[in-house]
Amino acid sequence: MVPGHEVVGIVCEVGRDVKTFKPGDRIGVGCIVNSCGQCDHCKRHLEQYCERKFVWTYNDKDIYVDGNITYGGYSTLMVVPERYALKIPEALPLDAAAPLLCAGVTVYSPMKHYEMEKGGKNFGVIGLGGLGFMAAKFAKAFGMRITVISTSPSKEQEARHALHADHFVVSTDPKQMKAAEKSLDFIIDTVSAEHSMDQYLPLLRTNGKIILVGIPSKPLEVSAFNLHAARRCVGGSLIGGIRETQEMLDFCGKHHIFCKIELIPIGYVNEAMVRLVKSDVKYRFVIDVAASTPPEFRPN
Amino acid sequence: MVPGHEVVGIVCEVGRDVKTFKPGDRIGVGCIVNSCGQCDHCKRHLEQYCERKFVWTYNDKDIYVDGNITYGGYSTLMVVPERYALKIPEALPLDAAAPLLCAGVTVYSPMKHYEMEKGGKNFGVIGLGGLGFMAAKFAKAFGMRITVISTSPSKEQEARHALHADHFVVSTDPKQMKAAEKSLDFIIDTVSAEHSMDQYLPLLRTNGKIILVGIPSKPLEVSAFNLHAARRCVGGSLIGGIRETQEMLDFCGKHHIFCKIELIPIGYVNEAMVRLVKSDVKYRFVIDVAASTPPEFRPN
Repeated sequence: MVPGHEVVGIVCEVGRDVKTFKPGDRIGVGCIVNSCGQCDHCKRHLEQYCERKFVWTYNDKDIYVDGNITYGGYSTLMVVPERYALKIPEALPLDAAAPLLCAGVTVYSPMKHYEMEKGGKNFGVIGLGGLGFMAAKFAKAFGMRITVISTSPSKEQEARHALHADHFVVSTDPKQMKAAEKSLDFIIDTVSAEHSMDQYLPLLRTNGKIILVGIPSKPLEVSAFNLHAARRCVGGSLIGGIRETQEMLDFCGKHHIFCKIELIPIGYVNEAMVRLVKSDVKYRFVIDVAASTPPEFRPN
Repeated sequence: MVPGHEVVGIVCEVGRDVKTFKPGDRIGVGCIVNSCGQCDHCKRHLEQYCERKFVWTYNDKDIYVDGNITYGGYSTLMVVPERYALKIPEALPLDAAAPLLCAGVTVYSPMKHYEMEKGGKNFGVIGLGGLGFMAAKFAKAFGMRITVISTSPSKEQEARHALHADHFVVSTDPKQMKAAEKSLDFIIDTVSAEHSMDQYLPLLRTNGKIILVGIPSKPLEVSAFNLHAARRCVGGSLIGGIRETQEMLDFCGKHHIFCKIELIPIGYVNEAMVRLVKSDVKYRFVIDVAASTPPEFRPN
């Protein structure tokens, strides 16, 4: 199995009927490389909710081609249907744009769905990893006031200076959590570790929404009272559609938004994994596959 | 402590400054008898989310009057500030209108908030008690297709005939639950017994919403995957504001909607409680306080 679903590169060849790309173009591929294209959801550009099945970029069966397993982007070459290919705006560095293709759109999509781009609201983000970093960037660009909520007091300086967060709340400090009660209109929860929603729901004002984008393996606890008391809701969201991903990339190009990354050669991945587990990365490792490939194996 | 928060009666006396009621008027009182009246929520007629405190109709301290305990509607006389009093439309029977004041508005409010009155959607209700009955009535009046979800197969006939439900699903039957997957746009969950949201979330289509109005004492289980897979959300809602309650009563008057009740004298309450626990009532007991009161204690 070959992973990699935040993939950028340069087009080296296009099929006969391809209209929107030509050799030399800057191209990106995210989590999705195929879907039925026929259902209501696909027709509405919501391929991530395809009623038949969408095909993950790696380790999934592409039932629309030959039923074989998909191989991800840790590769010198990749073939992708035109519909699932994205244009990387010239204003974005190719490497730092890669995390937009999953982390970026995963937070951008619910932010658009819940109309956060209208601005003026109080926005909170739980967890300051790759997704949290992107969420804070978008929130600022949308004109919201930002509260970063983290278990790590050490992240305060970074949050305030690099991300221009207006507030920083240490979630393990009951006093700080109490002081932040009913202060937020929206929260994007990027945490995939097991946790209780009841800890965070009181931070929301009336009609406030907390949108989970992390994937905790155990069910979340949600108490009725925390929902009822202020007509709150808990939602989820899965990556984003292809058209929306392009829209997000264009938005990033216009506003000069990209991820803070650490570029590594592929030989460094085992060390990178160890550091990742310790949260010792700001904010995404990106593998330079081209530079890691001996010249004789590189495509033209 | 004297309970009762679905109260109807006839005005026997009004204060000097009261403009909207006169002796002889049909009047109702719901769950709220006071609030600060000054906060943003009160100004927007959302007294149920009053930022200072709203006062429950019974067993609560009315900090806006004298700090004494409020006594509910199981009473020959009741005093209520004009703002929290409701007009019962002439088209409604007084006794069967009583349950509208809590059960009715508790389901009406989230249905309006989530714009279900626009009709055309697939609506589910979990639990066919007082709240479920009212939710189904409103859903039909709003022009939605109705699915009643219940643990009791015995309720199917009633659901289909009395409530004109389009579908009936026995929630303990995995086959029926599987067949109903991704069929509903909205669910109102009236169950106050402990239960898992994960059982019901798969019934929702993309962007579907389940709104809890019951009050289970233990936290609900909500799995990330069930939210993400179709951008679902779980919300809560608390009764409704006073203006909205009046709007609901007027809607009920116009569409001839009221609760199916069993009228009882107050001497029957202990038997009624036993039957209530067994769900042996369609759908609300209403106590006839006037008829239960000796003539010499009745107000004029």
